[in-house]
Amino acid sequence: MNKYLAEFLGTFWLVFGGCGSAVLAAAYPELGIGFAGVALAFGLTVLTGAYAFGHISGGHFNPAVSVGLWVGGRFDAKDLIPYIISQVIGATVAALVLYIIVQGQAGFAGTGGFASNGFGDLSPNNFSLGSAFIIEVVLTAFFLIIIMGATDRRAPAGFAPIAIGLALTLIHLISIPVTNTSVNPARSTGVAFFAETAALGQLWLFWVAPIIGAVIGAVIYKLVGRENN
Amino acid sequence: MNKYLAEFLGTFWLVFGGCGSAVLAAAYPELGIGFAGVALAFGLTVLTGAYAFGHISGGHFNPAVSVGLWVGGRFDAKDLIPYIISQVIGATVAALVLYIIVQGQAGFAGTGGFASNGFGDLSPNNFSLGSAFIIEVVLTAFFLIIIMGATDRRAPAGFAPIAIGLALTLIHLISIPVTNTSVNPARSTGVAFFAETAALGQLWLFWVAPIIGAVIGAVIYKLVGRENN
Amino acid sequence: MNKYLAEFLGTFWLVFGGCGSAVLAAAYPELGIGFAGVALAFGLTVLTGAYAFGHISGGHFNPAVSVGLWVGGRFDAKDLIPYIISQVIGATVAALVLYIIVQGQAGFAGTGGFASNGFGDLSPNNFSLGSAFIIEVVLTAFFLIIIMGATDRRAPAGFAPIAIGLALTLIHLISIPVTNTSVNPARSTGVAFFAETAALGQLWLFWVAPIIGAVIGAVIYKLVGRENN
Amino acid sequence: MNKYLAEFLGTFWLVFGGCGSAVLAAAYPELGIGFAGVALAFGLTVLTGAYAFGHISGGHFNPAVSVGLWVGGRFDAKDLIPYIISQVIGATVAALVLYIIVQGQAGFAGTGGFASNGFGDLSPNNFSLGSAFIIEVVLTAFFLIIIMGATDRRAPAGFAPIAIGLALTLIHLISIPVTNTSVNPARSTGVAFFAETAALGQLWLFWVAPIIGAVIGAVIYKLVGRENN
Repeated sequence: MNKYLAEFLGTFWLVFGGCGSAVLAAAYPELGIGFAGVALAFGLTVLTGAYAFGHISGGHFNPAVSVGLWVGGRFDAKDLIPYIISQVIGATVAALVLYIIVQGQAGFAGTGGFASNGFGDLSPNNFSLGSAFIIEVVLTAFFLIIIMGATDRRAPAGFAPIAIGLALTLIHLISIPVTNTSVNPARSTGVAFFAETAALGQLWLFWVAPIIGAVIGAVIYKLVGRENN
Repeated sequence: MNKYLAEFLGTFWLVFGGCGSAVLAAAYPELGIGFAGVALAFGLTVLTGAYAFGHISGGHFNPAVSVGLWVGGRFDAKDLIPYIISQVIGATVAALVLYIIVQGQAGFAGTGGFASNGFGDLSPNNFSLGSAFIIEVVLTAFFLIIIMGATDRRAPAGFAPIAIGLALTLIHLISIPVTNTSVNPARSTGVAFFAETAALGQLWLFWVAPIIGAVIGAVIYKLVGRENN
Repeated sequence: MNKYLAEFLGTFWLVFGGCGSAVLAAAYPELGIGFAGVALAFGLTVLTGAYAFGHISGGHFNPAVSVGLWVGGRFDAKDLIPYIISQVIGATVAALVLYIIVQGQAGFAGTGGFASNGFGDLSPNNFSLGSAFIIEVVLTAFFLIIIMGATDRRAPAGFAPIAIGLALTLIHLISIPVTNTSVNPARSTGVAFFAETAALGQLWLFWVAPIIGAVIGAVIYKLVGRENN
Repeated sequence: MNKYLAEFLGTFWLVFGGCGSAVLAAAYPELGIGFAGVALAFGLTVLTGAYAFGHISGGHFNPAVSVGLWVGGRFDAKDLIPYIISQVIGATVAALVLYIIVQGQAGFAGTGGFASNGFGDLSPNNFSLGSAFIIEVVLTAFFLIIIMGATDRRAPAGFAPIAIGLALTLIHLISIPVTNTSVNPARSTGVAFFAETAALGQLWLFWVAPIIGAVIGAVIYKLVGRENN
């Protein structure tokens, strides 16, 4: 049970920290943290969560990561469904707590997009479904490659949370204007419930594309990371 | 005595660096560091302080951390009160030195909020007491979870100051607009003495909420971090 | 073959992440990541790529680095040409995927400079050929010095990807306004094919200057890093 | 000789990177890196330089650091003067190369302050001599405390360049508006020769205050870091 609780907490932290910084701090006049600050926040949720929970659950915090690591032979099939359930619940509870907090702002005017992911009209910079799909696939594939590479027993020990967390920062630095950056179906699901936009109707893409990307990434790393070269 | 002096110095550094960057550099026209720079500064005070003093005092620099680690079974009760006193004195002396420095600015117009914490009218973005309370509890709880997880003997050795320092950066990236971010009663107390606002009247919340959060975080980590799973 | 594939993937990641963040996110109104965000992105491509692929290919991702390490006695001559070919192909494929993505933006108005490098009229801040040449030589020289120093067997093990990745961030913090920062002929080549400017006509400089700088840096480190002192 | 050359190169890198980012990139319209980017650049010069040269010279790159480490019993008196000479020459050559580069900008209008340090009229935000003196003393004292603490044999091995480099980032996040941040007499000296302002006339303070601060920091760490507690 402890590892499921760790995945619940870690995914809570990812959504509360990443989406929380976006909702609460990104657009504060003059002093706001902008997309770069949100990118840093998402990455630091994983960096800190992986040092805190890595020795308990492996620190996935993301259904696409769990699927990819299963395909990559690093994760046991029997834990796949419980992990994904724990992650989605963690993300949703985080979004709920964030929702309660934002309602306490004087002159609260609604949640708006609530840091949800989208394409077309819901893309921050109006990118098409096709562009959104491609970038989510490519970025999740590299996320898995980095996760598998940095935790390869030939890589230096202990540094994986730095590499993986900062990979998520990098991913956000690239793609917030395109899809608001998912690469994580649980993160997309949690906040979509509270968005006032049509985010829920586009949620399918943020399950399909990251999982396809994760599988591709895992297969690529199995190929390139083989030792018999 | 050395460990008390280390806590004094480390908490001085946290307040001088974190609140100093907020007061001196955040809102400089065009080039100012903004909330993201202040968030980085707070985190780096703890990252650097923990590498400098961790082997002497454990590097708490925060009464809520000391209480949480005591509840979590990582810190000896007999040191709790001396640590908290050292921390509050360190924070207050730092605020005093900062106060002397700002008075040397040409056309000095008063300290204003002086990087103090607040809710309602004293919240940077007008968040209610309830929102302030919830976010301080949640963030301090995760701060303790990360501290206990990253210093767990199963976590990779030597990386804890990075995880813990950057957790404090993340916490500020999320919550500066809500409460100006405390999660640290000593930090809140030190600058409240010098603020021209009613910050002292709201100081109680920044003792109560972080300590409640720290206790919750410590209890959660004791539960999830048990090895018999 | 695996190491060539790793160099292909790593250089893809460098260009997709670094140039992608520049093209997609740097100038987003109000919230854009700016040059500092782009600098961070470039550095994190190398930091993450080096943890993911370092144990497979050494993690060069840059023809100037491969040449410099060969001159410095750290890299086998027989791999030099295959590495450079893999890197240039990786960079070009990344630019192509990025080009496909940007075309999906509503109201797409052309690629413009597409994060290509340049001097004179194509320098972001109108720096001359001479200034561009000097800064690319100096920065690539120090890049090689840091690479050779941080991977010296006397340096602490495991930290090299942090030092090398953040060196690339630093290099960009200095020089984006001068040349848009190359220090990497493959990166310059990949995007030049898709730029609407005359970037291809200036591409020679971003092969010549980084390679000269890399050779100088390798020679300097061989001198200063000798152990018989 | 190698260690003197390493100090020359490292201090060149500190000034070329830190002051270079300030002169070339800080105030670029819309996309410039601002004070936060300059702070990051200064810190990364030391982080990268310390991984590259630490095993050769110890990685001081700063006369105040060399003096402080001598007082702290960590550095041999016979190397003090050669180190300081190497550092000042490195800083000056870096400023010269930067000066040559900036002259290649179309419409070059003079060096202005050229990232030099100052107080009163030459303080970015008009802070008095007294404020400048205090903040330089306090920040250099903590810089030495962190250097001595992070390289204490009880601290985790290998992380010192991260702690020390990011301490310099933190120091700049706090104090650029006050003195443009020195804590390093060589850095102040190198660029003062090329400034069009009266920076040379204020240079004395940026030798006296950092060295006093470094001595205070070294003495404090010797006291608090004693093991017989």
